[in-house]
Amino acid sequence: MKPGERIDDLQRNGLRIIQDPSGFCFGVDAVLLSDFAGAGAGDRVVDLCTGTGVIPLLLSAKTAAFQIIGLEIQDKAVDMAKRSVLLNGLCERISVIKGDVKEASTVLGRGSFDVVTANPPYLKSKMGLINADDSIACARHEILMSLEDLARETAALLKQGGRFYMIHKTFRLPEIITVLRDHKLEPKRMRLIHPYGNKESNLVMIEARKGGGMELHVMPPLIMYEEKGVYSREIHRIYDTNGWL
Amino acid sequence: MKPGERIDDLQRNGLRIIQDPSGFCFGVDAVLLSDFAGAGAGDRVVDLCTGTGVIPLLLSAKTAAFQIIGLEIQDKAVDMAKRSVLLNGLCERISVIKGDVKEASTVLGRGSFDVVTANPPYLKSKMGLINADDSIACARHEILMSLEDLARETAALLKQGGRFYMIHKTFRLPEIITVLRDHKLEPKRMRLIHPYGNKESNLVMIEARKGGGMELHVMPPLIMYEEKGVYSREIHRIYDTNGWL
Repeated sequence: MKPGERIDDLQRNGLRIIQDPSGFCFGVDAVLLSDFAGAGAGDRVVDLCTGTGVIPLLLSAKTAAFQIIGLEIQDKAVDMAKRSVLLNGLCERISVIKGDVKEASTVLGRGSFDVVTANPPYLKSKMGLINADDSIACARHEILMSLEDLARETAALLKQGGRFYMIHKTFRLPEIITVLRDHKLEPKRMRLIHPYGNKESNLVMIEARKGGGMELHVMPPLIMYEEKGVYSREIHRIYDTNGWL
Repeated sequence: MKPGERIDDLQRNGLRIIQDPSGFCFGVDAVLLSDFAGAGAGDRVVDLCTGTGVIPLLLSAKTAAFQIIGLEIQDKAVDMAKRSVLLNGLCERISVIKGDVKEASTVLGRGSFDVVTANPPYLKSKMGLINADDSIACARHEILMSLEDLARETAALLKQGGRFYMIHKTFRLPEIITVLRDHKLEPKRMRLIHPYGNKESNLVMIEARKGGGMELHVMPPLIMYEEKGVYSREIHRIYDTNGWL
């Protein structure tokens, strides 16, 4: 443990994670994406922009994936993620690698993965205010990578028929669909997240398949709150599984 | 009135519509699209694939649009739609024109419309069984026109900044978004329709803007039934407005 860090209990399979509250902690997005994503026994999985490694940790508990690699560019997050893997005794299944998403397929190899997941920066680097803290800025804004970089490298990493699971801001959906399809990543399943049942969607989760045929399934909407302060039954299901409510 | 026809009361502003139950009657889709679409006073509107003209009739009651043109290729539907306009005394605002969507901008003029609406055939002509009755087959399948034809002609009909409102099958959403954007029709607003709150979406409504910037708003989901046989409050709102429940 280093100064400012703390260990949080993921309350699933006894998993714990090292985070730094002054830097960047995982959010509800990562938990929702871990619920949406899937991987089969024997699958090789890469989580891009893994941060402190929460998605690899949750997927190791949820799935029987053979190997899960977390790729992260920021040194401090890589260091915390590596120590979390060690802390949980998961070194045989999870590897954390420092690297740039823009070169992911060069670093990790082309066409050899079954699943790619990503909870990437949501905002274009010129949009909105850039947070003064560099680690937070890089996790929120496309400073170090663009949606185009993400789709290109994901397509290069995946085997034919491999699956990509992503969570992103809903307002960018048309651009997301265009960029994915430009790289032969065909959207097959989508789920829209709404804060309330009568409010616009703020986040969207998409499953795309490399070389897949055109046919999208849009799942039932995922509503966060029944009313102010009261989580929906589905959020209770997702978090109860993980024990965080 | 011709043999086999009947007059149905739209129960809105006293509107009535001539239909032929053995041919093709309007469905819930047209009513939902009329609720989703909008037009300002003075707007010029075209409804493509207008069938018996239900969307022009409903839009004439809902909006202050200056002129509404319904374009339809099937003679029998054109004839019924024209007589419905006459029956309702709406000849000054609604015109029904026989014509092919593939040549809509040649027939009606380029860049002169504020709004285009369409409840087009949903299925590719090679998908599924083709209905033996020709008028039904043409209304359900892309026999006479494709999504590409529809987007190209819509873009040609609209002024810069003009709006396109469409309802379509959800499973074709990625293709729809790609084709619209290829023709500079940027999706700005979308609403997914689900039969039940816990079921996949079957239909989607999209508003696109010619030359618009990238930013999509996904409205709250539209749920048809609370439970089997019980319409949702929102469907009651939409139909109560029209008096059909």
